[in-house]
Amino acid sequence: MKHTYYDKLDGANFSAHGRERLSMKQTLSPFDILLESEKPDVYGKGRLIEEFQDDIADYLGKEAALFFPSGTMAQQIAMRIYCDECGINRVAYHPTCHMEIHEERGLHELHNIEPVLIGDKNRLFNLEDLKTLSDVSTVLFELPQRELGAIAPTWKELTDMVDYCQDEGLYLHLDGARLFEILPHYDVSAKQVADFFDSVYISFYKGLGGIAGAMLAGSKDFIEKAKVWKQRYGGNLYHLYPYVVTAKYVFESERDKMAIYRDNAVEYAALLNKIEGVKTVPEVPICNTFHVHFKYNADTVLDALEKALDETGLALFRGMIKEVSKGRSKTEIYMSNSYIMVPKTILNMALEYFEYILEKHREK
Amino acid sequence: MKHTYYDKLDGANFSAHGRERLSMKQTLSPFDILLESEKPDVYGKGRLIEEFQDDIADYLGKEAALFFPSGTMAQQIAMRIYCDECGINRVAYHPTCHMEIHEERGLHELHNIEPVLIGDKNRLFNLEDLKTLSDVSTVLFELPQRELGAIAPTWKELTDMVDYCQDEGLYLHLDGARLFEILPHYDVSAKQVADFFDSVYISFYKGLGGIAGAMLAGSKDFIEKAKVWKQRYGGNLYHLYPYVVTAKYVFESERDKMAIYRDNAVEYAALLNKIEGVKTVPEVPICNTFHVHFKYNADTVLDALEKALDETGLALFRGMIKEVSKGRSKTEIYMSNSYIMVPKTILNMALEYFEYILEKHREK
Repeated sequence: MKHTYYDKLDGANFSAHGRERLSMKQTLSPFDILLESEKPDVYGKGRLIEEFQDDIADYLGKEAALFFPSGTMAQQIAMRIYCDECGINRVAYHPTCHMEIHEERGLHELHNIEPVLIGDKNRLFNLEDLKTLSDVSTVLFELPQRELGAIAPTWKELTDMVDYCQDEGLYLHLDGARLFEILPHYDVSAKQVADFFDSVYISFYKGLGGIAGAMLAGSKDFIEKAKVWKQRYGGNLYHLYPYVVTAKYVFESERDKMAIYRDNAVEYAALLNKIEGVKTVPEVPICNTFHVHFKYNADTVLDALEKALDETGLALFRGMIKEVSKGRSKTEIYMSNSYIMVPKTILNMALEYFEYILEKHREK
Repeated sequence: MKHTYYDKLDGANFSAHGRERLSMKQTLSPFDILLESEKPDVYGKGRLIEEFQDDIADYLGKEAALFFPSGTMAQQIAMRIYCDECGINRVAYHPTCHMEIHEERGLHELHNIEPVLIGDKNRLFNLEDLKTLSDVSTVLFELPQRELGAIAPTWKELTDMVDYCQDEGLYLHLDGARLFEILPHYDVSAKQVADFFDSVYISFYKGLGGIAGAMLAGSKDFIEKAKVWKQRYGGNLYHLYPYVVTAKYVFESERDKMAIYRDNAVEYAALLNKIEGVKTVPEVPICNTFHVHFKYNADTVLDALEKALDETGLALFRGMIKEVSKGRSKTEIYMSNSYIMVPKTILNMALEYFEYILEKHREK
């Protein structure tokens, strides 16, 4: 049965997690400032979509970019192009790659491409893991690696791995769903990261808060091929403007706030780690996203969260509290503009209630 | 080189063809009347999208329906499900089927499904054509058959063909991109047409004027399978509400106007057929869409259209005037709310100018 905490989330006055919830109309407000004469894109053509594609290509230092309704579509297509290119129907990625766990095996079912899982699902892959690969067309990197708590290799490790793959003549693709989020950690430009890769996918709805949509960037030739595949997928919609206009808006207004959100994540994680039986992964977040592990059942955590919410109006977490094993549970949190709006006294009070209920449970 | 007529279309005061052009903001106006508390759909879940799917399933008399970003995606998926179901990777459709001419062979490239073209591309297929089929999983009907001038078999012919396919144990799918448009011709409900088919796809942006989006309807089991494929395609977007909300709005406000548009098409075609060297296909349109054939080069037609537009402010056609062969060209027209706004005196004057220039050209 669903815990009552989840039902109360909509009524919370404050949230430590995530982004301020806008109504659909508010999210569409970038249309209010468009000229009435501005024309919709039609099947991928039009000033707004084409200029935005050029902007992103520039931003990532690639020759071209193509807007997609989803990253699932964009990334499968990138993999297919590379596999066709070298006649090898195998691509290598981390065991927790989005394509492996969230796409119903689309890569296999639509393209007959077999994934080769690199390393172990509980840690990042490394150079030694890559050296075991053979007969793959492409290596996909995800920076940061979301399912491990949004962690990432050091810049040196990344450079060494990329060098190795390039020497081996492998195609390199970046799952940059959270690329903006990781930039403050490396303290480099998006271009410097993208430089390592033949192609990059970025998302407009995750950290940035757009409605949906993704961009795939790479060489001109690569993007021309991707256009044909986008048509084959039924992704070249009559109009994409609801996504394009809002994506452009949030790309411009949100992408430089990630250092603040990372700092907030570090602060919030430190507060959480003070609580007995609560541990963040990583201990010090490297970006706005991290995991929280509890030495309690999910129901105990939810009871404590509910108490804190009832007493203070603050939702400490919003994600699912997942049971890992008996007496162990975890959740994911990402920091955005909601945390900034939480008064510190409310935050501290909520954490105290949370801790109090957990403690009471431990004493039983 | 692109004819100057096309550049002048945006400045036209009136248009005989198509739908009033709304700005993006105007098209999104259905959001103005949503409650602020109404929640966005999330990965296909939510009140708005699920209720709309149920509404369409009811309207078509099917057990279930699923919203898709595009018809391309929806129809390929339907074909794949049927082919998997009976282990036959061949589907039969008309040579001008959308999957054959507008999807970059997606059905083959993504599913390894081979099309079997029924009959001749210049006419509708018939019962005799169907009797030649063997070893196909599915027969796809398109009602009306757009590329032939939006014509359709008689109800009797349709019934006989469907009966034959059902007796043969074939799956039947309807490309109902223009289903609303054909209903006044048959004078039946959408349900009565949909009854013939195992699954039906309808579009929300063609005749209805939505932004984009499609619905696929069929049995519960079929739609459950389609959901998995929608995920594989990357079609299960984080939010689909820009399409869903506007689709629902135009579905409710536009679908019953198709008889008026059909009557307007009949009237306009009669006026066009009076002009020497101009012939509509069909001669008497059966729905809002028809073709116009000219015994003139495209450039001559465009010169005449430009003259008429310059003199009266009315765009008689908006579609591409396509050269068929030397001295022959054609275009497609669809009637919607624009024609109703054209004053009859302006219409007659424009047709007179159009005819005058064509005549002058003939005399040369």
